[in-house]
Amino acid sequence: MPSNDTNYAYVRGEILPLESASLHISDLSIQRGFGVFDYFKVEANHPLFLNDYLARFRESARLMTMQLPHTDEQLREIIHELITRNNMPLSGMKMILTGGYSENSYDLAEPSLLIMQQPLAMPGPETLGKGIKIITHEYIREIPRAKTINYTMGIRLIGEVKSKAASDVLYHLNGAVSEFPRCNLFVVHQDGTVMTPDSGILLGVTRKNVLALAEKKYPVREGSVTLYDIMQAKEVFLTSTTKRILPIVQVDDTVIGEGVPGPVTQTLLQDLILLEEVDRKLQKQL
Amino acid sequence: MPSNDTNYAYVRGEILPLESASLHISDLSIQRGFGVFDYFKVEANHPLFLNDYLARFRESARLMTMQLPHTDEQLREIIHELITRNNMPLSGMKMILTGGYSENSYDLAEPSLLIMQQPLAMPGPETLGKGIKIITHEYIREIPRAKTINYTMGIRLIGEVKSKAASDVLYHLNGAVSEFPRCNLFVVHQDGTVMTPDSGILLGVTRKNVLALAEKKYPVREGSVTLYDIMQAKEVFLTSTTKRILPIVQVDDTVIGEGVPGPVTQTLLQDLILLEEVDRKLQKQL
Repeated sequence: MPSNDTNYAYVRGEILPLESASLHISDLSIQRGFGVFDYFKVEANHPLFLNDYLARFRESARLMTMQLPHTDEQLREIIHELITRNNMPLSGMKMILTGGYSENSYDLAEPSLLIMQQPLAMPGPETLGKGIKIITHEYIREIPRAKTINYTMGIRLIGEVKSKAASDVLYHLNGAVSEFPRCNLFVVHQDGTVMTPDSGILLGVTRKNVLALAEKKYPVREGSVTLYDIMQAKEVFLTSTTKRILPIVQVDDTVIGEGVPGPVTQTLLQDLILLEEVDRKLQKQL
Repeated sequence: MPSNDTNYAYVRGEILPLESASLHISDLSIQRGFGVFDYFKVEANHPLFLNDYLARFRESARLMTMQLPHTDEQLREIIHELITRNNMPLSGMKMILTGGYSENSYDLAEPSLLIMQQPLAMPGPETLGKGIKIITHEYIREIPRAKTINYTMGIRLIGEVKSKAASDVLYHLNGAVSEFPRCNLFVVHQDGTVMTPDSGILLGVTRKNVLALAEKKYPVREGSVTLYDIMQAKEVFLTSTTKRILPIVQVDDTVIGEGVPGPVTQTLLQDLILLEEVDRKLQKQL
């Protein structure tokens, strides 16, 4: 919970109260939906795995032919200034880089950088205990390796997800599954191998951490994952910055395994929580 | 040219000077690139073919699970108010409907409606006389029938278009061509048939008008058009609200026909200019 009433945000060079944070309507995000972003978790006022998120933010900008005008050091300074001012110990922080205030509403201008801190709702014990239902949809993101602001499809499907009493939607194309609008997918095969798609996806930071943790305990395979693999799986789960690891117990009409969260999912979640603690302690020592 | 210094825009219920027209950063266009728009031409202070553009704007909103909260009559009132205040006799007018100020940066809120008037640069006699070169790129828009603000791909390709000394980029998938980021495609076959793709495209208002004009003089076919059709064509041209009809004389490395604008292209352009005059006169009589 914020300890004061004012939430501050960084907008094009200025730190100002969130309620007065705006962009001129010539900005290419408004005119053309053009921008990239990244989002990391702040725990006990420490930004977790920040190096990875800054590197990905920069790579997304590059893939969209934009250049992030700030150094990592400058970004860190803004981030720590916001953390100090806002004092929201558990929160999410979002960085957005748009195409800027375009003269002709099409050509790129000097980019607009925004950084804002937001309340964070982690999945509760009931959700983690029961697991979630997901649906599937045929789609692949346009430039999967870039974290663009384009959620045209994800938001358009919100109504369908709700109407089917599901919690999220998994994209697939020609039988191969890729990712959720905001999460990566993992499958535990009947032979115990932990599998995750490696193409058509955003390279999630939580995905990377979970892969590293899984390799210590289980056989692991990054590669093609099909809808059939999912329907036959022992366990299925998703990973994301805000959700960590969330068990999936139903995919469309198919119940996965026994219909309850499995032991591999639960073990990896505990290991991930430990890894987050280690990252916080390491940062304190720096 | 504007006859006064202040350009007014409509933003979320208010008409205010363009320079102070902004959206809060919680708007879903900034957070998630989520919105639809439409764009029509104003000539001699008359909005051309306005019925068609209003209908398409409403349909785009519907396809993106949004509802345009204004009636056509209310939209017309705002449009005419801006035309009167701005007095930009030849201009473009853009209507944008975004997902609104979202509480959690994902779920739809009450939509934000923006309407702004912009200077318009029509193709000059040199461009019309010489024709343009285009390149091709494998891609299809996500929801082709909706005019969303998502120009992720079009803007990302600006650099490539320029580096190849081209003027635009034509999308195709599995050999079938669809459209340009902001224009429709027409081909005049060797047998004289005027062809245009009918799937994977935005239904352009200029495309509709050109089809109606072409049907009076030539055999016409809406349907599949392949890259091969283009390379073998007698004439190729594009249509759009701002460009009307623009001859294409080179596609990648292939010169089309004699490498100069053809007679069908030129005839249809003259007919379209006449049709615009008729629309203006009809509106005056109303």
